[in-house]
Amino acid sequence: MTGQQRGEETRSNILGAALECFGRRGYEATGVAEICKRARVTKGAFYYHFPTKQAVFLELFNRWLEGIDNQLAEARSEAASVPEGLLRMASKAQGVFDAASGQLSMFLEFWTEAQHDPAVREVILAPYRRYRDYLSEIIQAGIQEQTLKSVDPDVAAQVMVSLAVGLVLQGVLDPKGADWGKTTRNAIQILLEGLQKK
Amino acid sequence: MTGQQRGEETRSNILGAALECFGRRGYEATGVAEICKRARVTKGAFYYHFPTKQAVFLELFNRWLEGIDNQLAEARSEAASVPEGLLRMASKAQGVFDAASGQLSMFLEFWTEAQHDPAVREVILAPYRRYRDYLSEIIQAGIQEQTLKSVDPDVAAQVMVSLAVGLVLQGVLDPKGADWGKTTRNAIQILLEGLQKK
Repeated sequence: MTGQQRGEETRSNILGAALECFGRRGYEATGVAEICKRARVTKGAFYYHFPTKQAVFLELFNRWLEGIDNQLAEARSEAASVPEGLLRMASKAQGVFDAASGQLSMFLEFWTEAQHDPAVREVILAPYRRYRDYLSEIIQAGIQEQTLKSVDPDVAAQVMVSLAVGLVLQGVLDPKGADWGKTTRNAIQILLEGLQKK
Repeated sequence: MTGQQRGEETRSNILGAALECFGRRGYEATGVAEICKRARVTKGAFYYHFPTKQAVFLELFNRWLEGIDNQLAEARSEAASVPEGLLRMASKAQGVFDAASGQLSMFLEFWTEAQHDPAVREVILAPYRRYRDYLSEIIQAGIQEQTLKSVDPDVAAQVMVSLAVGLVLQGVLDPKGADWGKTTRNAIQILLEGLQKK
């Protein structure tokens, strides 16, 4: 094993351990010492890879988003039209709920922190804005290919993002309250009912 | 002033002081001593009115919901049809955002706590379910009066609740990111586009 491989392994051990600790005890309550113990690394090794506990969280957050991005891109590339693409994206929702399950406690804490810390807020808000722009661009493509009515793409995209945020939050708080994957598909179907050109 | 009036005044002072403290410093960070100091009441008086800090929070939460309930009922009673009623409800959204502004930090904390405490979770989830049932009943009325298509009322209601949750959460995290009152009206318009009978 090369030094670089060992470094990557250590990094990935730290991330796995942090994910477990944050999910079980919450972000605030988890200390760097606890993450190191679970990852079986020294504090020196930890701080070689991450400047702060927050940096570990941000890396986890970004990896979670990357997973979503890949699924959305895949759904889009497989579809022959924009409405079909949006429906395929909605059917990926179950995977997003599963990946988030047990970890959203930490996102909730982070949202709380975001209210008091402008730097954290920027990190949290950037992906919302990015998804809004991404969906807006997809809706524009749908208007151009004449499968969608000529609505305001930014408005329709904002509605979809808010819906997704609400579904994820409720799905995490009340996993048994509904079949959230199915609810997401139904939601997109109702929206498309209004957006699609007949 | 009678003893009862004095009691009510004390109670309302405590609630006002708690709202201010929770909004400024967060729910966890606020102690009963701090609430008493700001309300200018003794700890004895506090505990005469509320068994715990959590009880104060729940009363504030329920008062906030009561305000929403009244606005929804008013919107509904003023409307001649279900679609008109839903649009009127959406235009009340700005007031809900304004009332929530600066206080949602405490709801976020409570959601976080809800993940670890089943009793808190029940208190938080009950209104979601209640709003879902309320909207489902309204949608059923719309199907009956033939202004709405015969969709599954529970599914459509769930979509509206998720959308509302997402809008409130985003509106609080990113108040300047959009005109949230307008976004809410647009969202309901897009949904109605799909739900209304032509």
